[in-house]
Amino acid sequence: MTAVPDHGALLRAELTPQLTDGALTSDPDVVASFARDEAPFATVGQALALVRARTVQDVQATLRWASEHRVPVVPQGARSGISGGANAVDGCILLSVERMDRILRIDAAEQTVTVEPGIINQDLKDALAPHGLSYPPDPGSVALSSIGGNLATNAGGLCCVKYGVTRDYVRQVAVVLADGTLTRLGSTTAKGVAGLDLCGLFVGSEGTLGIIVEATLRLIPLLPPPLTAVATFPGAREAAQAVAEFMGSGARPSMMESLDRASIDLLNRFGDFGLDGQAGALLLMQSNGDGVAAEAAREVSAFAAVAERNGALDVAFSEDPEDSDALVATRRMAQPAFERYSTEHGGGQLLDDVCLPRTAIPEFYDRLDAIRARTGLMIAVVAHAGDGNVHPSVFFDTADEASVRRAHEAFDEIMAIGLELGGTITGEHGVGSLKAAWLARELDEGSRRLHRAVKDAFDPLGILNPGKQFAAL
Amino acid sequence: MTAVPDHGALLRAELTPQLTDGALTSDPDVVASFARDEAPFATVGQALALVRARTVQDVQATLRWASEHRVPVVPQGARSGISGGANAVDGCILLSVERMDRILRIDAAEQTVTVEPGIINQDLKDALAPHGLSYPPDPGSVALSSIGGNLATNAGGLCCVKYGVTRDYVRQVAVVLADGTLTRLGSTTAKGVAGLDLCGLFVGSEGTLGIIVEATLRLIPLLPPPLTAVATFPGAREAAQAVAEFMGSGARPSMMESLDRASIDLLNRFGDFGLDGQAGALLLMQSNGDGVAAEAAREVSAFAAVAERNGALDVAFSEDPEDSDALVATRRMAQPAFERYSTEHGGGQLLDDVCLPRTAIPEFYDRLDAIRARTGLMIAVVAHAGDGNVHPSVFFDTADEASVRRAHEAFDEIMAIGLELGGTITGEHGVGSLKAAWLARELDEGSRRLHRAVKDAFDPLGILNPGKQFAAL
Repeated sequence: MTAVPDHGALLRAELTPQLTDGALTSDPDVVASFARDEAPFATVGQALALVRARTVQDVQATLRWASEHRVPVVPQGARSGISGGANAVDGCILLSVERMDRILRIDAAEQTVTVEPGIINQDLKDALAPHGLSYPPDPGSVALSSIGGNLATNAGGLCCVKYGVTRDYVRQVAVVLADGTLTRLGSTTAKGVAGLDLCGLFVGSEGTLGIIVEATLRLIPLLPPPLTAVATFPGAREAAQAVAEFMGSGARPSMMESLDRASIDLLNRFGDFGLDGQAGALLLMQSNGDGVAAEAAREVSAFAAVAERNGALDVAFSEDPEDSDALVATRRMAQPAFERYSTEHGGGQLLDDVCLPRTAIPEFYDRLDAIRARTGLMIAVVAHAGDGNVHPSVFFDTADEASVRRAHEAFDEIMAIGLELGGTITGEHGVGSLKAAWLARELDEGSRRLHRAVKDAFDPLGILNPGKQFAAL
Repeated sequence: MTAVPDHGALLRAELTPQLTDGALTSDPDVVASFARDEAPFATVGQALALVRARTVQDVQATLRWASEHRVPVVPQGARSGISGGANAVDGCILLSVERMDRILRIDAAEQTVTVEPGIINQDLKDALAPHGLSYPPDPGSVALSSIGGNLATNAGGLCCVKYGVTRDYVRQVAVVLADGTLTRLGSTTAKGVAGLDLCGLFVGSEGTLGIIVEATLRLIPLLPPPLTAVATFPGAREAAQAVAEFMGSGARPSMMESLDRASIDLLNRFGDFGLDGQAGALLLMQSNGDGVAAEAAREVSAFAAVAERNGALDVAFSEDPEDSDALVATRRMAQPAFERYSTEHGGGQLLDDVCLPRTAIPEFYDRLDAIRARTGLMIAVVAHAGDGNVHPSVFFDTADEASVRRAHEAFDEIMAIGLELGGTITGEHGVGSLKAAWLARELDEGSRRLHRAVKDAFDPLGILNPGKQFAAL
């Protein structure tokens, strides 16, 4: 990719006439403003140009040209990812699908919706609600992130504990392959086993196999309003034990989130959310009883009993939807609170994303305490506790080399502990460029070989999002 | 594969010492008795030998030897499939995993189970019940089919309408690749996005990518006892309209099966199940209300209202578990009743497996009537109606060439109608050798190319179950 300037001129001359008017820009300022997602500290290269596709044909033309000239293509949705998956690489075309944001068809009878990839998750939810339908996956970025990006990363969220992840809702995708070929994978029907599950393979492939230009998603009826319970504990270990016991009983809460002492502390510094500053951990649990109020009440009571058995300091309930919303909003304020703290303490935050067996979480917290004690670093943990999916944030001073080094070591050590305790290095944030080396550590030799072989099969020229998910395999 | 006899001698000499005692047999009678699954009219080749693996090492040694000598391997579970996927091809090794049937670990806290592939689905269910756990997928062959085969075909069943298909329950697989490499794909945790979903890719791959030797499955609490409703209709079209309307309302029945007039008739000839011989269609619906009896009652009432609005002749309920079991048992007697009819009428039955949008099912029945009228063939349809998954059985006289030809034409025409109405050629039975040509018609050019490329990536020598799923791609 040394002939970048030539490629730029050629690109403008050859590709522009094939695209929707104004889709291609090589204005350096505009291109630079699209060069990265929300991952801090991930590498960012210099792109050749930006294509803001409006049509499937725009995507096809771009990939045909890129294949012909061996130019890398970095697909982008809303660039709200936090693993660097959408970051520019040197000499690439940034291919944004954010303007392909239409809902093509809501089929209430089939309980499906067909969308373009650029639609924002919350906008889709809002459009479905009047039809009595919902698309459950709700990553933290629900208000910002696009469905295409959600599919590319197999996004999770708060509701996964009951409703599963993005993959569980994808029936069919239309994708443009590296050479510009458009193909349709999967079946829109409730069941289908005609051939390999290549549709599922695209979910979580982070733009390395092709570009999703359309998706048909399974829907469910609007989620019923939940009851909410909040329990505080002396420490994270007790809270984690309560979660493991409750979930092991076969409970089906619609939310089961946790905050550790540091998270509570940072939230209390950020604003007045009424959180008990003495608590060492907090669980936020919801049950919707699948629409049956008595069942929700029963499940919340069962949770309270488990919490008390595991040493809860306090358990409180709310049937008031506004109270519930406020509690969930508090949970969603954790990241802004962390950002405030980070800004005021040297600007560094590394957000990890380890998923573990729920029964391993108590030990995980013990080992995190050991890291804190050894390094002196502030580490705050929010977790989708019901799924065993923990998000430790490691804070550091970007101006202090030793602090930077310790933070990255702690970030790495957290993943190592995750693997050691039977978990994975990423439950929902994805690999991107941030965890490419760790992916190679998680997968065994056979799996690495298969990954490389599949990548070669889909993208023989290696032009699709190079230097990311597959960089170390 | 012309050097079959030499390979046989070499195989015995070289492979036998590497295997568990008695695992390899080349006794022609024994080998022949393992040569086919339950698919009628699918081609069957002559195998070289049979390996009944007891250990992962047996599977690895067999594949290493087969790769070295370019000998095809046909993996087999319980051979209860009905698409010819487990049938011998000439000169192959039949590699049966039915003796690898242990439950390796039940983890109640994580709500998972880890099994070897040979365990029978119902045996697994029975072992889980005392732990209060269930593995929902329940193909018609639940009492006969193995989990490995269920995974290989992404088996469906009666509960899918509420609980999803096999793929929805697979967290991790250990597989032996074509060259004997053992690898572990997926994560045992509730969430995981580390790399491509190669675990999901194996589900439904019909033994063409590698051999599943272990699986970790997600479990849910034991299913609560359901309420059952039976509704009869003047014809299949009215019943299908009722299903489309009921499912389109967001209902979540735990079973929604249908029988058409011909199925009712063949059941009534087979035994006294108390079915109304005047009815043109019957719907069998269950709701378990997720354990809340009042919710189940509400849902059954809602179903009754929809049925009556769509012209039901009669709607009856039962709260008695024995009655419910009897009704479900009647549904499960359809295939034996069909076999009896077939035996008495020339011995031919072709069982199709089309999945359609639910709203297209009424038209599907109209077009089936046209086929009946034109060909004079007996065609009986049972359906997992809630999923739009119809199973028309075409009966014919194997001794009458014209009848055989008409039946195969009708079987093909049913798939063509399925595709035309927006469906798939197979909802749950799989492709095997029976529908290989039709798979090529369902997939577009890009998808066929990807299928071939993935197959080459996993099985570069083409030794894994050749001549089946990929034969026409």
